Amino acid sequence: MSFLRNCWQVAAFGDELAEAPLPRRLCGEEILLYRASTGAIVAMHDMCPHRLVPLSLGQRRGDTIECGYHGLCFGPDGACVKIPGQEVIPAAARVHTYPTIERFGMVWIWLGEADLADPALLPDLHWTEDPGWTTGTGYLHFAANYKLVTDNLLDLSHETYIHGNTIGNGHDQSIAQYPVTATTEHGRLVRAHREMPAIAPPPFFAMLLAHHGKVEQIDRWQSAVYLPPGINMTDVGVYPVGTPRTQAVMLRVLHLLTPETELSTHYFWSMCRNAGLGDADLTARSNLAVDATFNEDRAMLEAQQRNVCAHPHTALPGIAVRVDAAPLHARRLLAALIDAEHANPRAVAAPVPLGTDGPPMLAQAAE
Amino acid sequence: MSFLRNCWQVAAFGDELAEAPLPRRLCGEEILLYRASTGAIVAMHDMCPHRLVPLSLGQRRGDTIECGYHGLCFGPDGACVKIPGQEVIPAAARVHTYPTIERFGMVWIWLGEADLADPALLPDLHWTEDPGWTTGTGYLHFAANYKLVTDNLLDLSHETYIHGNTIGNGHDQSIAQYPVTATTEHGRLVRAHREMPAIAPPPFFAMLLAHHGKVEQIDRWQSAVYLPPGINMTDVGVYPVGTPRTQAVMLRVLHLLTPETELSTHYFWSMCRNAGLGDADLTARSNLAVDATFNEDRAMLEAQQRNVCAHPHTALPGIAVRVDAAPLHARRLLAALIDAEHANPRAVAAPVPLGTDGPPMLAQAAE
Amino acid sequence: MSFLRNCWQVAAFGDELAEAPLPRRLCGEEILLYRASTGAIVAMHDMCPHRLVPLSLGQRRGDTIECGYHGLCFGPDGACVKIPGQEVIPAAARVHTYPTIERFGMVWIWLGEADLADPALLPDLHWTEDPGWTTGTGYLHFAANYKLVTDNLLDLSHETYIHGNTIGNGHDQSIAQYPVTATTEHGRLVRAHREMPAIAPPPFFAMLLAHHGKVEQIDRWQSAVYLPPGINMTDVGVYPVGTPRTQAVMLRVLHLLTPETELSTHYFWSMCRNAGLGDADLTARSNLAVDATFNEDRAMLEAQQRNVCAHPHTALPGIAVRVDAAPLHARRLLAALIDAEHANPRAVAAPVPLGTDGPPMLAQAAE
Repeated sequence: MSFLRNCWQVAAFGDELAEAPLPRRLCGEEILLYRASTGAIVAMHDMCPHRLVPLSLGQRRGDTIECGYHGLCFGPDGACVKIPGQEVIPAAARVHTYPTIERFGMVWIWLGEADLADPALLPDLHWTEDPGWTTGTGYLHFAANYKLVTDNLLDLSHETYIHGNTIGNGHDQSIAQYPVTATTEHGRLVRAHREMPAIAPPPFFAMLLAHHGKVEQIDRWQSAVYLPPGINMTDVGVYPVGTPRTQAVMLRVLHLLTPETELSTHYFWSMCRNAGLGDADLTARSNLAVDATFNEDRAMLEAQQRNVCAHPHTALPGIAVRVDAAPLHARRLLAALIDAEHANPRAVAAPVPLGTDGPPMLAQAAE
Repeated sequence: MSFLRNCWQVAAFGDELAEAPLPRRLCGEEILLYRASTGAIVAMHDMCPHRLVPLSLGQRRGDTIECGYHGLCFGPDGACVKIPGQEVIPAAARVHTYPTIERFGMVWIWLGEADLADPALLPDLHWTEDPGWTTGTGYLHFAANYKLVTDNLLDLSHETYIHGNTIGNGHDQSIAQYPVTATTEHGRLVRAHREMPAIAPPPFFAMLLAHHGKVEQIDRWQSAVYLPPGINMTDVGVYPVGTPRTQAVMLRVLHLLTPETELSTHYFWSMCRNAGLGDADLTARSNLAVDATFNEDRAMLEAQQRNVCAHPHTALPGIAVRVDAAPLHARRLLAALIDAEHANPRAVAAPVPLGTDGPPMLAQAAE
Repeated sequence: MSFLRNCWQVAAFGDELAEAPLPRRLCGEEILLYRASTGAIVAMHDMCPHRLVPLSLGQRRGDTIECGYHGLCFGPDGACVKIPGQEVIPAAARVHTYPTIERFGMVWIWLGEADLADPALLPDLHWTEDPGWTTGTGYLHFAANYKLVTDNLLDLSHETYIHGNTIGNGHDQSIAQYPVTATTEHGRLVRAHREMPAIAPPPFFAMLLAHHGKVEQIDRWQSAVYLPPGINMTDVGVYPVGTPRTQAVMLRVLHLLTPETELSTHYFWSMCRNAGLGDADLTARSNLAVDATFNEDRAMLEAQQRNVCAHPHTALPGIAVRVDAAPLHARRLLAALIDAEHANPRAVAAPVPLGTDGPPMLAQAAE
């Protein structure tokens, strides 16, 4: 498997975890997650080392997990604390545990070398916690490799063909017509920026700009940002033509991808907006639209994954076109990071900031 | 895979194809079929060469297919005619297309070397178009290799055991009692002929002979004809004992088998009859009976396929009995044709006529 | 596959077999079972040697089986007695048959060398036929290897964690607290004995002791007995503290495991009790409780099997604890018997008695 491990990845939303343990496969590993009485998140291998049954079939007893087969108990550090029928507990009786941290509404897990798990290595997603932004969240399961999802997120020209009902402009103003600038920054992050001046507002943006009344034309920007292996952000701004860019309605859409297996992906998303703050009805309508939109991607990517499996000797893209620039940057960067970790299992690539809180400078859009 | 490719094979019934493109796997290849505005049938590889998604998830735009992911458009000849976001279209941007021809109510496809696709190589199934015959049609999907279906069609002794409700005589007049003559003709076609004089009419034939009133005994012939790889015809005649053979009710049942995969088969059938011409009610009842009958075969052959998969080292037949003569002719002939095509990828075996329009001469039945 | 073959294994309950043939996979082989007019049980390979279709899709004709495809008929000895369309029957036209014997309410089959199939090699399960005992029976299908089921049956400490609703004591009197004596007897049988004095009666035993009124404390013993490859017996006794051990309510629970495949098991059970003789209502309630109890095991073992498949390089147990003693005896003994049969395909290990009809001596419980 080709997963990057020395990095923080999203395991769950914070509000998924309470008393009841949650089993979830992450990067191929069966993991059991629960919130200890201290509030800290425990992540342990979901398999009893005695007879290999899932610990998730057992019971939580205080902050320990009791195996449902023979009653062995494991504490939050993974050490066995009880073996029914004997006093002595062998040192080998423990389950692997993983460092975790809770931040930005999410639970992060470190699947690599545990002593390298530094909270300072968390990516900065502060919009989810900033009172100047309101956030909606959701989860989808994609039966597709996470790299196919990243390809999708870095080339937004597909919005015209897949998302005409929500965020895509039609053929006459197809997204691909507007040039995109793809760059790799600091050897760590890919950014693909596009300006779309004087364009019709697709339905989702008309909804966000409703306080302006009916809007015929907007200026719109979109930056797809990728911090490998799994942090994607779409930085979007829209504003009626003639109004100040600094007063744009902005979105920071976080697409946080954690592989389940080589062929499936956990897709956690948070959409932060700087308008309609605290408007729960707008959040609800927005969440519905986002869920519908991402499910349109899911249908396409799952079909793509089936074809990729059926044609294992065909590389992606089969033919390269201009809009592939950013996905190609991303594939190269991810491969380099994975190679570096294979060469040195203690290699860690620190994250870099995804962007500023304001609109990107217009100069940035020049190709 | 061991499919013969330099030949016409049925891809669809003509009336399946209209505006909406139809995806279908044929001999392991994903193919998209649609009828162009000219009326001609387009068959193209159902996979965008850019990112390998099925083109069948896209949209038809005039006579082109627009990929549903990034909007690349492909014309009826497979050439890419549009790439959103750029003017230049690289020569590699094309999908494979396949020669097709529409005839006898069916769409035929040529999966082999395209320049060899000569309409003169179509088998002659003129009964489907002849005003002296009335035709009913249907389709079944068999989860079994096409060679198991051919074995079935060339040894009709199974009618007694599988099809007692429609076309099989019972144990006292079991089909196998009547000797069969199996021959390979012109190194190209297998024929297995049987005469069954003075036999009770099974229910299906009683229905066809209803205009004679209640019939106690009939003379019946059946010829199973096989033109590899996938053209099978059952040439059947029934007439009350004492009436002229030349006035027999005759059936030409076409069983047109196209492999979907090594383990599944598209089964297109057309039953042509020279009686009850234009009687739509008779056609409807007949179609129901045929569908039920072939589904009886399906249940048996799918079970057989599962056992064949579970016992890969057991050849078929495990023991050879007399009724295997025609299936063995067929297997030898098919293997020789496939070997010839492997040896010379441009080898083509022209079809030969399946039979005459009238009853076979009685002399032909002598063993 | 690692199945022991020179032994009697349960193929069915006797009352499953009547006129209609029953197909069942045993140790990976497809077998067709039916009761001949003589009352004897026929077991034949469920596959026609002609075209490999299941004979179970055919018809029974008297004591022969007629293949549903081409009508070949096979007698109770497996010899072909009819081939439609010909007089000569080749010697190769036969299906393999297996020795069978009916005893103790069950049909036993011998999958190994047929001439070694001696009725004297049947294990003695006389409780099912003894008027001093009343028997309830049932069947479950486990999607787990039979060795995982044997592990389960030889370490009953799991009753506390899986079976609290029926036969398990709670944490304060957990089964594992009571020492167990694990022995291999005669190089042929494993016994794990445990005494549980002055213990609360779990619901199932309270039901069996209802004639004593409300019972606060009981003395209880349990012996798990294993005669490889598939005979397991749980020898249980319960009696109110202060009443004579010789008047205990006793159970002889037979768990007769026959592999279906490497990953699935037929689980035939018979629970014999020496109390409430002939009480059909008690039998019905008891059967329901046993079925529920064993289904609790099934859920755990099927999850365990999935993990064992996913972690093929991890041996069982991953860590050994004290309660594994008897399962480890059993694995060693079974492996030795399989090795012996591989070394000498005519090796046979005769069964030894599972136990006496009375309570085990108390001295036996000393560790």
